[in-house]
Amino acid sequence: MANFADRLASAIQDKGNGVLVGLDPRVANLPGPCQPASDSLADIASAYTEFCKGVIDVVADLVPATKPQAAFFEQLGPPGMLALQSVVSYARQRGLLVILDGKRNDIGSTAEAYAAAYLGADSPFGADALTVSPYLGDDSLTPFVNRATNHDAGIFVLVKTSNPGGKRFQDLTAEESKIYEHVADHVESLAVETVGTCGYGSVGAVVGATYPDELSQLRKRMPHSMLLIPGFGSQGGTASDVAAGFDANGLGALVNSSRAIIFANQRDEYKEIGKSDWQKAVEQATRDMISQLRAVVAVS
Amino acid sequence: MANFADRLASAIQDKGNGVLVGLDPRVANLPGPCQPASDSLADIASAYTEFCKGVIDVVADLVPATKPQAAFFEQLGPPGMLALQSVVSYARQRGLLVILDGKRNDIGSTAEAYAAAYLGADSPFGADALTVSPYLGDDSLTPFVNRATNHDAGIFVLVKTSNPGGKRFQDLTAEESKIYEHVADHVESLAVETVGTCGYGSVGAVVGATYPDELSQLRKRMPHSMLLIPGFGSQGGTASDVAAGFDANGLGALVNSSRAIIFANQRDEYKEIGKSDWQKAVEQATRDMISQLRAVVAVS
Repeated sequence: MANFADRLASAIQDKGNGVLVGLDPRVANLPGPCQPASDSLADIASAYTEFCKGVIDVVADLVPATKPQAAFFEQLGPPGMLALQSVVSYARQRGLLVILDGKRNDIGSTAEAYAAAYLGADSPFGADALTVSPYLGDDSLTPFVNRATNHDAGIFVLVKTSNPGGKRFQDLTAEESKIYEHVADHVESLAVETVGTCGYGSVGAVVGATYPDELSQLRKRMPHSMLLIPGFGSQGGTASDVAAGFDANGLGALVNSSRAIIFANQRDEYKEIGKSDWQKAVEQATRDMISQLRAVVAVS
Repeated sequence: MANFADRLASAIQDKGNGVLVGLDPRVANLPGPCQPASDSLADIASAYTEFCKGVIDVVADLVPATKPQAAFFEQLGPPGMLALQSVVSYARQRGLLVILDGKRNDIGSTAEAYAAAYLGADSPFGADALTVSPYLGDDSLTPFVNRATNHDAGIFVLVKTSNPGGKRFQDLTAEESKIYEHVADHVESLAVETVGTCGYGSVGAVVGATYPDELSQLRKRMPHSMLLIPGFGSQGGTASDVAAGFDANGLGALVNSSRAIIFANQRDEYKEIGKSDWQKAVEQATRDMISQLRAVVAVS
């Protein structure tokens, strides 16, 4: 194993793109063959596992990483957490890096418990990285950084989120910088502390595609921080919006797409191709997103 | 069922105190009779369940509410989530209100999924209330408020946390108010929207005992918001520090204590009493905390 940032950079170079496929299963959107046997939480959880494995089978050779959304698994209670564990494990077996989207945080030994739950192949949920919320401050991030450092794992800290209401507190100005810039500066200092040979640290930042100017400024402000960019596609972010997140070598960013890929068979442009085989729609939507990114960013 | 705030106010009046017992199980601290049969996660999870039920048996007649800390259960993987579910269910059976400390949040339908996972007796984890982080902004809180309103549940939003590093972003000043004051003003507006006959809303705030001046100011700034006050005891907050969190009737605040109560048999003052029966130490520590609070705040 190696430093998380170096593993991520290698995976991006191997696959030639920075696409992050989000696993956000929802029962109403599951393709026909993946519908649960009943509406019991256990059956829905089994359906989520099979569906996510089916997505992973398609994208494992195409993209560097996947991002399961914890909330949709937690919504099913304990059977959902078993499903999440299986999905993370299967994705890693198939060679994908797994960034669990849990937006966790707490203080002291409680933060240590979250880090121990999720970070590293030897943790119960076994993810390579976890998304973390910064409101609790610098000392709340330390246990995650320590665990990540000792287990070749990473974290992505929320900096500038993609939703309209994210502005409410993040865009307030204090001491001549926005709050998200204060957070960004701290994340960058942690990225420097955890920097790998690729030039990026194992501590990165979540920055929405829906604010391209801020994304461009944050790329410059956080030169050692990998950016996890949500909001592409469904939320309106385009390939040219996210281009500024990448460096000259096409590294330094992962662009997430969830519903637009995993439920591609429900999109007009992929309905026909997905009619007999939903995985073909997933594959084509993934390939199309890769092409869109390659048109604006070349990985070298 | 009734509005969460009214249920909480009634419970505080019934028990005559605002003590919130935190359930933070840790394997190293479990009393001898609760030690797990092996170091497997499943056995540790069973030990956590039995230990927490043992604490609940002691405190159910003494205090209004309990606060399981999700992180310590998540640290055990899926068996831990089963244990969490049992502990929440048992506490509610015993008549305690359950505030799950998960500090969750996300946007849109993902926030809805977290709310559906945790809030309300008919949710998989079945809690009465959940702690929520505000960094993602006002629209991220809406799905929690809606679910709480429709399921007689509540949320407590992080406002001013008890840890030293909480100051890092929370205490920055923007537009002549601290960030935590901006968050407080928004939480208060949600408390007003969800107000019950008791005068408090089902949306409350987490405000640390370790900053008594700020606690006093926030009590005035948020007259309709129930305060969940961590940091008492182990983190140094005293009864006089938290007194300002209560209103003239002794309502409006819950003061949390976790380790100092549940692991009381390891404290010098309760070692003797807990030697033959750890639950006696829990009971005495709970009664002593109730007395300390009653000395500064009378519930009427």
